Amino acid sequence: MENGGSPAPANGWRFKGNDDLTQASSLTVRGVLNMLMGNLNSDDTRPVIPLGHGDPSAFPSFGTTPFAVDAVCAALRSALFNGYSSTVGIPSARRAIAEYLSKDLPYELSPDDVFLTIGCSQALEAIISILARPGANILLPRPGFPYYEARAGFSHLEFRHFDLLPENDWEVDLASVETLCDENTVAMVIINPGNPCGNVFKYDHLKKVAEAAKKLGIMVISDEVYDHLAFGSCPFVPMGVFGSIVPVVTLGSISKRWIVPGWRMGWLVTNDPHGILTKQGIVESIKGFLNITSDPATFMQGAIPEILENTPSHFFEKIIGTLKETAEICYERTKEIPYITCPSKPEGSMFVMVKLNLPLLDDIEDDLDFCSKLAKEESVILLPGLAVGLKNWIRVTFAIEPSSLEDGFRRIKDFCQRHAKKQ
Amino acid sequence: MENGGSPAPANGWRFKGNDDLTQASSLTVRGVLNMLMGNLNSDDTRPVIPLGHGDPSAFPSFGTTPFAVDAVCAALRSALFNGYSSTVGIPSARRAIAEYLSKDLPYELSPDDVFLTIGCSQALEAIISILARPGANILLPRPGFPYYEARAGFSHLEFRHFDLLPENDWEVDLASVETLCDENTVAMVIINPGNPCGNVFKYDHLKKVAEAAKKLGIMVISDEVYDHLAFGSCPFVPMGVFGSIVPVVTLGSISKRWIVPGWRMGWLVTNDPHGILTKQGIVESIKGFLNITSDPATFMQGAIPEILENTPSHFFEKIIGTLKETAEICYERTKEIPYITCPSKPEGSMFVMVKLNLPLLDDIEDDLDFCSKLAKEESVILLPGLAVGLKNWIRVTFAIEPSSLEDGFRRIKDFCQRHAKKQ
Repeated sequence: MENGGSPAPANGWRFKGNDDLTQASSLTVRGVLNMLMGNLNSDDTRPVIPLGHGDPSAFPSFGTTPFAVDAVCAALRSALFNGYSSTVGIPSARRAIAEYLSKDLPYELSPDDVFLTIGCSQALEAIISILARPGANILLPRPGFPYYEARAGFSHLEFRHFDLLPENDWEVDLASVETLCDENTVAMVIINPGNPCGNVFKYDHLKKVAEAAKKLGIMVISDEVYDHLAFGSCPFVPMGVFGSIVPVVTLGSISKRWIVPGWRMGWLVTNDPHGILTKQGIVESIKGFLNITSDPATFMQGAIPEILENTPSHFFEKIIGTLKETAEICYERTKEIPYITCPSKPEGSMFVMVKLNLPLLDDIEDDLDFCSKLAKEESVILLPGLAVGLKNWIRVTFAIEPSSLEDGFRRIKDFCQRHAKKQ
Repeated sequence: MENGGSPAPANGWRFKGNDDLTQASSLTVRGVLNMLMGNLNSDDTRPVIPLGHGDPSAFPSFGTTPFAVDAVCAALRSALFNGYSSTVGIPSARRAIAEYLSKDLPYELSPDDVFLTIGCSQALEAIISILARPGANILLPRPGFPYYEARAGFSHLEFRHFDLLPENDWEVDLASVETLCDENTVAMVIINPGNPCGNVFKYDHLKKVAEAAKKLGIMVISDEVYDHLAFGSCPFVPMGVFGSIVPVVTLGSISKRWIVPGWRMGWLVTNDPHGILTKQGIVESIKGFLNITSDPATFMQGAIPEILENTPSHFFEKIIGTLKETAEICYERTKEIPYITCPSKPEGSMFVMVKLNLPLLDDIEDDLDFCSKLAKEESVILLPGLAVGLKNWIRVTFAIEPSSLEDGFRRIKDFCQRHAKKQ
């Protein structure tokens, strides 16, 4: 078409795409899941069982509370929140989030410690962009959430992986943290409750993390987007509890606890009673970043006080009850399938990691091959571990209707038996 | 406090702020306006007259239509839009935007040409981030919208300014575009209707811009966030009309026409019937950028078809009528004040540029000094031209209640007379 009437300029077009972006975005979970969805067999009349996602909002058992919907509509109808917000967020929302988070802390957060972001992902973008200076590096968990690697790659911030230890309830391998760290390391990231591992870090372990980071002179970035989604024996403890040992930047949102990831409302919070982040210029940089990026919808901010302060507790109890039930199903059914192993029962978030026992399987090359063939043969979507940094493991989402989860595991079992190595 | 019980690590803290961010964010309009607001005299009991803003949503004459509010509430209550959207936007919204924009084009846009963004600002962030490769440069208008300079600075994309010519209805100085352009220039930006000049580019001029860009091998980024806010003799023509001459990336949003900047709903659209942007890898990079950033709220996207297709036309007519009236007041009152000059009557957007006649004024050093003293003495806020790249000019917003605008100009007149040089 270009040659028809509109020849190119004499010296050609001078603009071109950006390889950094293509490369960074190839690392996302969505990319891998889309590829697997393309593998489904359209002749299979059974419903697809999606066990790879992080967004259960479409399942009846995981619908949000009408209370939150009413709060947003009321904010909209008030006509008070149609204009731009201040770049750090509107004061009433900052105050409400400070109060909400302070309930679990040994000190009071100030509204000035709270910065509103477009979901937890913009909070993550902010802190990675701020820390990305030439030569710096950051320590990320393996397995982890690949958005960190994608954003660090895009910002040219070097990342190094420390391990989470499956044999130790997925605790941080603190010895490897110390080995990886050098004078250019600026921060380490933890995700608690854990994505993708479904673990909840114990108080004592978090304290050790804080002490290790303090010794190394690095801040802790604590991704608590799954905060309060803990349903096992270990209660959720925010990393901010240890803010007087080491400066902590907490990332959070209403996306998971209220099951509204599409509402794009999150926060970045500085847990820093000694004011170290201010002194080091980090707080100024957070404001600088927010000055040159977009904000969460103002009426969403306007609804935050009502949502955080008054959501009926039975909604949370119902969701926790359902997650406890589906986590149990997931763990028990895995035990019945010798071809996959779950090192520990999930106690938080919506995920668990299971290990493929490849020697027992015929004609399955690796985790990606397993997931591709499973999608094609059984219309079940699982996330290959390579997408979260752990090859030959699988991430299973159990936040789905219990009956579908049972159905999914039946199909996984059939699939494994069909592909079992003959004795 | 740090010394009380929590000494710093042996080698100090290793993280620090990011000067790039501090520097980039110092360029924003909001920063300058905040500084001026700090200059107000709290003893002045008169209401503050804000003529520096770009957000009239709080003024009764500029309230949004209840129709749009209802559409968003309906999308929320449907419970269909609580989850994540796809990174490029949900199909129904892409289709609706394609149809809405195609009405003014000589060809049909495809939904695949449309990418949903968090307001127009994320569209701008996207295209600047994509074009920023080492050594590249971009041509920006002067006066302009400083968010472009801020984002280009943050992305290390060199920018060069071409002039808009006040004596020529603020048309682009095409000769200077050609002089500035070299083999590393990738794009030029136009803003139409104009911020800060209040001009609307004529069809013939836009065609010349397209032909110049084509000759130079660069794309045109057309910021049409004020699209359809044209109330003079010259109708609004989208740059996409010339997409078959040169590839055009159009940035837009519902923020201004519907007066809901806090809703954060915008778009980036490729006007490219010859597929050049795809061939050059730009479309792939847009997808890559959107893969690693946040999205507009899904329910806002869900409401877009209803908002674009069915908003009653009397709402638009009312807003245009009010802007026409306030633009007239602004122009006429300026003519009555010999200390400021308006080169041409505003015909679009919400702004106009007026020139300070400094030789006629005593003890006023420059535009910033004028605005600072005016804020202090008369509680009127104007934006100094330096914030938009034109020293000793002033940007006046006329999107405000007509009576307040009259009041504001009375105060400006008093101020100027008080500071007039004695003959």
